[in-house]
Amino acid sequence: MSVIEDLTGELTRLPGIGPKTAQRLVYHLMKGAPEDALRLAHALEQLVQRIRRCERCGNYAEEPLCAVCSNPRRDPGLICVVEEAADVDAVERGGGYRGLYHVLGGRLSPLDGVGPEQLDIERLVERIQSSGEALREVIVATSANVEGEATAVYLEKRVRGLGPRVTRLARGIPVGSDLEYVDASTIAEALAGRRDM
Amino acid sequence: MSVIEDLTGELTRLPGIGPKTAQRLVYHLMKGAPEDALRLAHALEQLVQRIRRCERCGNYAEEPLCAVCSNPRRDPGLICVVEEAADVDAVERGGGYRGLYHVLGGRLSPLDGVGPEQLDIERLVERIQSSGEALREVIVATSANVEGEATAVYLEKRVRGLGPRVTRLARGIPVGSDLEYVDASTIAEALAGRRDM
Repeated sequence: MSVIEDLTGELTRLPGIGPKTAQRLVYHLMKGAPEDALRLAHALEQLVQRIRRCERCGNYAEEPLCAVCSNPRRDPGLICVVEEAADVDAVERGGGYRGLYHVLGGRLSPLDGVGPEQLDIERLVERIQSSGEALREVIVATSANVEGEATAVYLEKRVRGLGPRVTRLARGIPVGSDLEYVDASTIAEALAGRRDM
Repeated sequence: MSVIEDLTGELTRLPGIGPKTAQRLVYHLMKGAPEDALRLAHALEQLVQRIRRCERCGNYAEEPLCAVCSNPRRDPGLICVVEEAADVDAVERGGGYRGLYHVLGGRLSPLDGVGPEQLDIERLVERIQSSGEALREVIVATSANVEGEATAVYLEKRVRGLGPRVTRLARGIPVGSDLEYVDASTIAEALAGRRDM
């Protein structure tokens, strides 16, 4: 197999990159400076060599603790529970959260063989128990779909009574969306969760 | 800068990959097996180390001659002149061409400082002259835009009288397209180039 076919094949394995896009990328890399392609290769190797899981929360980290857990200005009184490390980024982009995280590593999905024991739930329970009264609130931020909801309900049962308040993200109309195009379930949730102005 | 930001930045330099796509790719790579990311890095390094230009036609090659030039079953009586090596692939995908190629390395574009001396034209002239009567036809397959046309006109003048017939690709309605959505210039070209049925 030629090196062009080889690289095209590897690129096609990435999400959202089909054969045509892969080929365009390969031609771009061949046409560009060799240093550009080598820098990309080096960045990939560095990623593999240096990325690990945060020992406390499961987020991606380059040190034993991730950037959030090692930041003394984050509020240890709040733990936001998310499915994946990518969700940490999503919450951070929101910009309003100053607490810590806990990454479950997935969501309950019996059909895919993912039960509670496949998720990082026991370590969350230990974190909550060892935090004592310093931990005020556990925010369940799983996805707003059937599996995410099932995970939230399971978590709530498991965590309830350990001390901290247990909350979940609000359901409602996404910011910037036209009411006409919002689906019926979201409208229903937004109506049920309406707030005083 | 973190390794995640580093790789995200490198990916964003690629055409068609914005910050969001880059981030999704990085999370995909972190979640997957380390071997996958390393294989991609290795394929990039191999590309840089092993890809060169074909000594005869300028196409991408892993040997002194490219896969087309070193194939004894290709017809040396035809040379198809293209702007970029990626265009060789485009013509090959058409499937009907069995001749050789010549890659110009661009097209005339005075505004970008690309004149005839920046293109690989002299070597094409030498190829034609040294081929003698064995070369029957030079097919000019530059782009169907202003710069591509200017390049074709310049090439035709330069090559005319050297012996072989000089042709260019037909203009017309793209296969599979709805006449309603074809632009006026293409309709005019297709009409002018109409053929007996």
